[in-house]
Amino acid sequence: MALIVQKYGGSSVADAERIRNVARRIIATKEKGNDVAVVVSAMGDTTDELISLAHQITDEPDERELDVLLSTGEIVSSTLLAMALNSMGYEAVSLSGSQAGIRTDSAYTRARILAVESQRIVKELEGDKIVIVAGFQGITPDMDIATLGRGGSDTTAVALAASLGAQICEVYTDVEGIYTADPRLVPEARKLEEIGYDEMLELASYGSRVIHSRAVELGELYNIPILVASSFTERPGTMIHGGVSMEVRNKVRGIAHDLDIAKVTILGVPDRPGIATQIFEPLARENVSIDTIVQNASVERVTDLTFTVAKNNLPRAMRVVELVAQAIGARECVANSKLGKVSIVGTGMQNAPGYAARMFRTLYEQGINIELITTSEIRITCIIDEARVPDAVVALHRAFELEKEEEQ
Amino acid sequence: MALIVQKYGGSSVADAERIRNVARRIIATKEKGNDVAVVVSAMGDTTDELISLAHQITDEPDERELDVLLSTGEIVSSTLLAMALNSMGYEAVSLSGSQAGIRTDSAYTRARILAVESQRIVKELEGDKIVIVAGFQGITPDMDIATLGRGGSDTTAVALAASLGAQICEVYTDVEGIYTADPRLVPEARKLEEIGYDEMLELASYGSRVIHSRAVELGELYNIPILVASSFTERPGTMIHGGVSMEVRNKVRGIAHDLDIAKVTILGVPDRPGIATQIFEPLARENVSIDTIVQNASVERVTDLTFTVAKNNLPRAMRVVELVAQAIGARECVANSKLGKVSIVGTGMQNAPGYAARMFRTLYEQGINIELITTSEIRITCIIDEARVPDAVVALHRAFELEKEEEQ
Repeated sequence: MALIVQKYGGSSVADAERIRNVARRIIATKEKGNDVAVVVSAMGDTTDELISLAHQITDEPDERELDVLLSTGEIVSSTLLAMALNSMGYEAVSLSGSQAGIRTDSAYTRARILAVESQRIVKELEGDKIVIVAGFQGITPDMDIATLGRGGSDTTAVALAASLGAQICEVYTDVEGIYTADPRLVPEARKLEEIGYDEMLELASYGSRVIHSRAVELGELYNIPILVASSFTERPGTMIHGGVSMEVRNKVRGIAHDLDIAKVTILGVPDRPGIATQIFEPLARENVSIDTIVQNASVERVTDLTFTVAKNNLPRAMRVVELVAQAIGARECVANSKLGKVSIVGTGMQNAPGYAARMFRTLYEQGINIELITTSEIRITCIIDEARVPDAVVALHRAFELEKEEEQ
Repeated sequence: MALIVQKYGGSSVADAERIRNVARRIIATKEKGNDVAVVVSAMGDTTDELISLAHQITDEPDERELDVLLSTGEIVSSTLLAMALNSMGYEAVSLSGSQAGIRTDSAYTRARILAVESQRIVKELEGDKIVIVAGFQGITPDMDIATLGRGGSDTTAVALAASLGAQICEVYTDVEGIYTADPRLVPEARKLEEIGYDEMLELASYGSRVIHSRAVELGELYNIPILVASSFTERPGTMIHGGVSMEVRNKVRGIAHDLDIAKVTILGVPDRPGIATQIFEPLARENVSIDTIVQNASVERVTDLTFTVAKNNLPRAMRVVELVAQAIGARECVANSKLGKVSIVGTGMQNAPGYAARMFRTLYEQGINIELITTSEIRITCIIDEARVPDAVVALHRAFELEKEEEQ
């Protein structure tokens, strides 16, 4: 008998009717002869509502307490889904992250899964029960609750699939799969039948919000195929796996974009060893997460250093950097919060020349100025004016002919 | 250093402002040099809202799942209170019933506390932290969540006080203490400075909803003084304890009433051994909780048997009883759901004659018909027309002169 892990996102369990709909989908999977373990997110906007409740108490809620508070959202939806299944005649049992044996480190609000002690889940599955696990949470070595950060339920699902030896992890959400670009920007964007873990990681990290990147990393590590599909239709989704054929396809697989980019440039930085440490250590201490770093070639032992952060981190970053700039004798700090980025992603690009050139030409033809360029082996990213991001995505999608069906 | 256990009810933590108010009260207790462990109920109407959410899924939610769902209400309020304390500069930590070591049996929705394994609480108190425990819940031998039934947070608090060897258990609510009668019915009702456990139990079981009767039982068993007071004022409350002086006081301590009474009478029951078993065993199997039972003296080997139940149990009780009546050859079943009851309670009554007579005369003078009478050693209860209950309470309060200060 195969074991299937399914994950349902917050919009899929947003109200009683949707929860019953999810229950019917789970039953269909069970009726095909599978064991089913399910991971659920909190209903709809519950997590945001709980955060707002905490902020009514204090501007800076204690992180341990915040995690316990937020963990209740997934517990509520897991019990309701178990009730729905039981009322339809299928034995189901909800388990909190703690009961499900999800062991994490103690980094509240951003904990990492250390292990899954799955005895309880296995026992319930052996009793022919459908197991519903509250996502996004686990238990620390001190027996406290910790959450995995936003999108953490995806990670819970893939970790469970790995530890239980599941055949597949199915992630159900409100979109039908992974597209060549955001369909809201590019109407002719095409749903991909399959995508490699690496490509998905670049798309996930670089602005495609469909699945959490840590879940994809875990999937790659344990070689768990991940299906991303809609809980509202029966249409096939996108399979994320390792065996994607590399040679015969369009070498650009998708366009990612992100509007949440702010840029800080420190001008006239003395170019001497240790200077980067002096700048980035204080930022790390202030918990400013840095996205991209670019340092220009040095001219007369003085250089300019640029990095990007999420927009809400900009005030904090500037406070830190202005002090540092003074200390190291840099000339000036400049910020720009009206930026976005656009990336082309594809495993095939690394050994095929001309992709970067075609990307830059496409942007040039749209009259879009490139502020920064960064690349990985399978991705090229340009940081541009946020107002031009939609045009850039559309133009790049067309330039790389992503609307065309791939040859098999 | 003294250890004080405080319990705050749902109305005391109904919103952020009230939670901050509770935090300030806890800090005042801490600042007097006490260790403080706190038990909280769910905020305001949370429990009702969660029950209504479950009923949107199914009419008969699975009890195990319902308990997990309801337990989140107290977890939410415990984290918010801990956040408030932390933000005011006092280290606090919230613990779920499970983390606090509240071990219960597996009777979902009405679990009993088996033991309190208080190591974690003790460790946190030794670290000079204020401990906030989510009330109303515990963990079963199978490591599942079970709740203690409505009002269960009072029981959690007294159980904690007993296991931690606390000096006192303070129960804060939205009334100022225990009154000689419900002040909404009797404006001249007087707040009692103190009351004995037994008297409080009769008042609590017989319709005074201020504190849960199981909590009072536990308090008596472990001799924990329980203070009932308001979280909204600084006025003194009522102390429930064992050392109440018995002789010099008014022998009637208070009037209890309850409007939730329905009566079932089985007429023409053959009077033979085992007949009560044949009637009440099927009712127990159907989970009908019986309040009062009265059997009339037998006339010609045929008797009438009457019992009372909560009004919402009446349809179920009648279904059972009509089948049983047929089986045992009884003549007929009659129900009356428009009843209430009124009781006078006081330890002194048992050795002093004339209280029953004065009660019956008072009701007679009001033109109130008595449907049933039951007594305990320290209580006399009359079941009457529900519409006349308020008149009865007012008249009895006056007849026994409860508005007068007691002599000390």
